[in-house]
Amino acid sequence: MVTQSRFQRPPQCPHLIGVDWGSSSLRVFLIDADGEVIASRSSLEGSSVLQGSASAFQASLENLAGDWLADFPEVNVLACGMVGSQHGWLEVPYVACPADSAAIARKTMTVKDVGGRRIAIVPGLRCDDGAGRADVMRGEETQIIGALAAHPEARFRSCLVLPGTHSKWAQVDDGKVSRFATHMTGELFAVLRQHSVLGRLMPSTLSGESSRDPLAFLRGVDDAQTGAHLGLTQQLFAVRTLGLMEQLSKASLADYLSGLLIGHEVQAGLSWRLCAGLEHSPLLVVGDTQLCGYYAQALTQCGVGQFSLLDNTAARGLWSLSQASDLASVSAFLIEEKCR
Amino acid sequence: MVTQSRFQRPPQCPHLIGVDWGSSSLRVFLIDADGEVIASRSSLEGSSVLQGSASAFQASLENLAGDWLADFPEVNVLACGMVGSQHGWLEVPYVACPADSAAIARKTMTVKDVGGRRIAIVPGLRCDDGAGRADVMRGEETQIIGALAAHPEARFRSCLVLPGTHSKWAQVDDGKVSRFATHMTGELFAVLRQHSVLGRLMPSTLSGESSRDPLAFLRGVDDAQTGAHLGLTQQLFAVRTLGLMEQLSKASLADYLSGLLIGHEVQAGLSWRLCAGLEHSPLLVVGDTQLCGYYAQALTQCGVGQFSLLDNTAARGLWSLSQASDLASVSAFLIEEKCR
Repeated sequence: MVTQSRFQRPPQCPHLIGVDWGSSSLRVFLIDADGEVIASRSSLEGSSVLQGSASAFQASLENLAGDWLADFPEVNVLACGMVGSQHGWLEVPYVACPADSAAIARKTMTVKDVGGRRIAIVPGLRCDDGAGRADVMRGEETQIIGALAAHPEARFRSCLVLPGTHSKWAQVDDGKVSRFATHMTGELFAVLRQHSVLGRLMPSTLSGESSRDPLAFLRGVDDAQTGAHLGLTQQLFAVRTLGLMEQLSKASLADYLSGLLIGHEVQAGLSWRLCAGLEHSPLLVVGDTQLCGYYAQALTQCGVGQFSLLDNTAARGLWSLSQASDLASVSAFLIEEKCR
Repeated sequence: MVTQSRFQRPPQCPHLIGVDWGSSSLRVFLIDADGEVIASRSSLEGSSVLQGSASAFQASLENLAGDWLADFPEVNVLACGMVGSQHGWLEVPYVACPADSAAIARKTMTVKDVGGRRIAIVPGLRCDDGAGRADVMRGEETQIIGALAAHPEARFRSCLVLPGTHSKWAQVDDGKVSRFATHMTGELFAVLRQHSVLGRLMPSTLSGESSRDPLAFLRGVDDAQTGAHLGLTQQLFAVRTLGLMEQLSKASLADYLSGLLIGHEVQAGLSWRLCAGLEHSPLLVVGDTQLCGYYAQALTQCGVGQFSLLDNTAARGLWSLSQASDLASVSAFLIEEKCR
């Protein structure tokens, strides 16, 4: 019957407006009944510039997707990411691990936009290690759900790496996110480059990004491995001395720093994976293509040969979560009727 | 004969104007023939605000010690620290380790101030690990020389810790600095507090410094030890989650971060000391009293019971270096004559 309705309705009839609202960017997706993205748009109006103001969130969403909201009034809107944080549109409490898509979908909360349209917001996840240490994520839970939809073989048991400002290493068992760990690698890179003595020898960001030095990056990864006993506070100072002693060109220092930090994370992450007994389970690296490429190089350098690279899976995750929630099924009938 | 001249000359006759010129501060010392400090002054005109301008360095020194320079025209002036760096008054090339006070004193270089007075500047040290990694210090070599003068038993073989923006762990053999390692602990603390997400939950610097939480500091040291396998990029994120989950009060987060970073450094430093076979040799902790106090707590927490704490030993080091240089002995006769 579902299959039949696919053939009866016009192609590309929107069934969901997905919103991936992180700290530094806003992306919207128009998604059809098969979970395929019909259209997508993005802006730089991330939650961090909106300062927790509901009207600012409303205005940003209207600016980017006002026509979609008007054209498809029955279609659900589901948003994930920092939009649900303390300084977001509405704070949606974290769901405790282990949690699967149904558990996450059950805890979505809704706000209303200017036109009274309900926007459902996905909760983040928290996990406790039992020894007083908690960890949290917002947005990555949706990417994980999307990645598991794209790689069903990883649902049983797998390790997922989501590189970023705050990288996540997550363990999945039986379709549930069991536990995860955050590494603030991306942010460390940014603050060290912009605000520390290490950035002083580097060319300005604009000219520096134009040409990368893959060998300097790999040297950083290598030094992170071989010099792990030195401690990161010491290893980082090598960025300065290599520059001072002209053992590395100034243009290559940022790549070396990036390799050092990503290498440090990957090494700690692989130990974490080993301790969890996940070394023979699928390893998925999910996120921005260029950044995942660096993680792929670091993983290879650290002797890991088998892993899958996935582009950002937020849209797919939002679709899966909308399918797992009751709200979706309620409105699905209305949409089907209209699209016939 | 030296002893006799001590009794003949007026007490407290200046024999050296010592200058400890770091990145963020300038301190001057009037030192007598026994190496005792007669008077000292300080300003915040560190080398980093003077931007490598010779006239700015001249003006700063004149402002702080112009009367001394005028009153004691034959007394040598010896300066150490970032004043000798690339962006200092004059770049004085690093001396390679192993190096003792004589080797360092031999490589001082001089500039002339407005009145034509010669200012001798102490070189920094560099050490190479033979595997392409170099490390550097400027200013700490003088403090090490001063510490060895105060603790002669440490000259044979010892480990020195100099906490700071860029902490140093140094090995001494036969009066020579054999090798050393830099940890950018202090700077990491500052940039993470001021510019990262970790600082966002902390009270502003001014109100935050007023009351410290020693237990939060020790918890940080403890977590650095027990969670070392997690990697520092991950451990740091705990500062955020402990605050978010209200497991630690916002006022205590800076102390926890400090404990985490100092604990990480101390743990790596103690491994370094162990690898060098220095665990039964004297351990000296040299520098700012309050900061050394934190390192003392961290060392104790890490099971190290025996160490000596020394206040900043720059003045004593400058005196020792002036004695080790030929210049000092040349002018000594003139000073003695004048003070009779």
